[in-house]
Amino acid sequence: MHAITIPEPGGPEALVWAEVPDPVPGDGEVLVDVAASAVNRADLLQRQGFYDPPPGSSPYPGLECSGRISAVGPGVTGWAIGDEVCALLAGGGYAEKVAVPTGQLLPVPDGVDVTTAAGLPEVTCTIWSNVFMVAHLRPGETLLVHGGSSGIGTMAIQLGKAVGARVAVTAGSAEKLERCARLGADILINYREQDFVEELRSATAGEGADVILDIMGAKYLEPNVKALAVNGRLAIIGMQGGAKGELNLGTLLAKRGAVTATSLRGRPPSEKAAIVAAVREHVWPLLADGRLHAVVDSTVPMRDAAEAHRALEESGHVGKILLTP
Amino acid sequence: MHAITIPEPGGPEALVWAEVPDPVPGDGEVLVDVAASAVNRADLLQRQGFYDPPPGSSPYPGLECSGRISAVGPGVTGWAIGDEVCALLAGGGYAEKVAVPTGQLLPVPDGVDVTTAAGLPEVTCTIWSNVFMVAHLRPGETLLVHGGSSGIGTMAIQLGKAVGARVAVTAGSAEKLERCARLGADILINYREQDFVEELRSATAGEGADVILDIMGAKYLEPNVKALAVNGRLAIIGMQGGAKGELNLGTLLAKRGAVTATSLRGRPPSEKAAIVAAVREHVWPLLADGRLHAVVDSTVPMRDAAEAHRALEESGHVGKILLTP
Repeated sequence: MHAITIPEPGGPEALVWAEVPDPVPGDGEVLVDVAASAVNRADLLQRQGFYDPPPGSSPYPGLECSGRISAVGPGVTGWAIGDEVCALLAGGGYAEKVAVPTGQLLPVPDGVDVTTAAGLPEVTCTIWSNVFMVAHLRPGETLLVHGGSSGIGTMAIQLGKAVGARVAVTAGSAEKLERCARLGADILINYREQDFVEELRSATAGEGADVILDIMGAKYLEPNVKALAVNGRLAIIGMQGGAKGELNLGTLLAKRGAVTATSLRGRPPSEKAAIVAAVREHVWPLLADGRLHAVVDSTVPMRDAAEAHRALEESGHVGKILLTP
Repeated sequence: MHAITIPEPGGPEALVWAEVPDPVPGDGEVLVDVAASAVNRADLLQRQGFYDPPPGSSPYPGLECSGRISAVGPGVTGWAIGDEVCALLAGGGYAEKVAVPTGQLLPVPDGVDVTTAAGLPEVTCTIWSNVFMVAHLRPGETLLVHGGSSGIGTMAIQLGKAVGARVAVTAGSAEKLERCARLGADILINYREQDFVEELRSATAGEGADVILDIMGAKYLEPNVKALAVNGRLAIIGMQGGAKGELNLGTLLAKRGAVTATSLRGRPPSEKAAIVAAVREHVWPLLADGRLHAVVDSTVPMRDAAEAHRALEESGHVGKILLTP
């Protein structure tokens, strides 16, 4: 098969479409013929040599994919050759084939085409595991989503609204905020022109956000804690603004707040399977009945993955960038 | 009645035993004739002018008490004059009488004398709300308790052991660690002589602590995050080492960790009542059957509260210091 390889870490040109051995599904795994993969910000770090694959996983980038099962390993039940699926991966999505533990498989949701489904596993599992399983967002609460027009952001807005929360977003342009508004966002903040702590405060009668889904890390740590409501939960899933920040425990204690940080990739298969099962139970019906939809920015040939990485780095996109082999 | 007043914030001598008006129980409150109160570290901050009582609460210090109900306000059910109780207070425990919302009342546990019961509400509610309601300590997990010989610490050790956790403690002397060991602590760390991160790591085969109950705040923020196990939860209840510390989100994210900070005093009555109800359900039976016991350092006449404050500031005590009017 072909896959995107990284002979030497570096810029987008480090991504090389090359012939490599086919993966072989192990115990409890299936082989998926990939219809599409999708780009995640973690892929950029892997390309630069800053985020190695966990031990035992594929060396190629790609944390999610969709496609059709073409072979079944020993001990697999409940899945068959020919099933259309999408999957959460520890790596290897940028390829024509990938071996996947069945605990990380999801059916392609009713009403979603198989290519588009490639962009669903990372966003839905990341949001569900953080906003719901860790931070327990409840109806009537306020969810602040940083980067509202990103792949994560566009789905987080919809999921927040679907459970009856009020959703605030930050984004870097009026156009992106307009897209967020059309997805249901209630409070729109242009982080280039406005102070999000102040804007959120005035939009919530001083209360702040019950849950914040953050991708900035250190740079936003202090303002995020300021922006939390009493009993608020700050869920950090990215560190685009650095890793080491000052935490004011006095502010956090006065609010009885929580700061959490997670990633999906490093979790053991059992935890991934639990998240995937919860997403299938709670999120998949909302996709099937049209209350949620995947926001796709563009679809790029997989061999041109470098172009997709450049697009993500320039942050001009809204929603997911897909890759097709 | 008499109460400890604070005419001018300052050192222990700022505490003045004086005649003041009797409190009057409001709607849903009872009046308790105080048998004893107990000293908490927050009382020292209040005495110094750094921790004002929440609006509407007693101006006198004292976050817990025991005694006998001597009057019942309008709308009170389930409690009667003559009942022996202990109570979580927003203030006013350093007095001969105090008005208490019924949601913050607990019966004196079977087998515990009424004076000793004064030292139970703060420790049990603080530990239960943090270690169990927030951090969800589970059987087989490792709990690290900083300040194992304090009032909080001596009860946290026992509660951790009662639910089947392994308990590690830090304390500042061999004598204090010996007391912790007799209460059941499994891993003993002298923080003056040892690096608690290294000691915990070697005692847990590199895994670290699933839950940390911390009183040091900023000073311990970095080592506490290092000491967390994967999926670990750091519950901060005090800031004896300052409020502003550096948080390494990269370390936290790799561990999928959580940092929380809470206090009891500022919570609304409904939250206090929920905590008190959970403590009555889960902790009170363990006190009644002798699996837990209150560790009392000393009992001091309330008019000499200054002496009790000095003792707490010198940190020579083990367990609670009680005050009797």
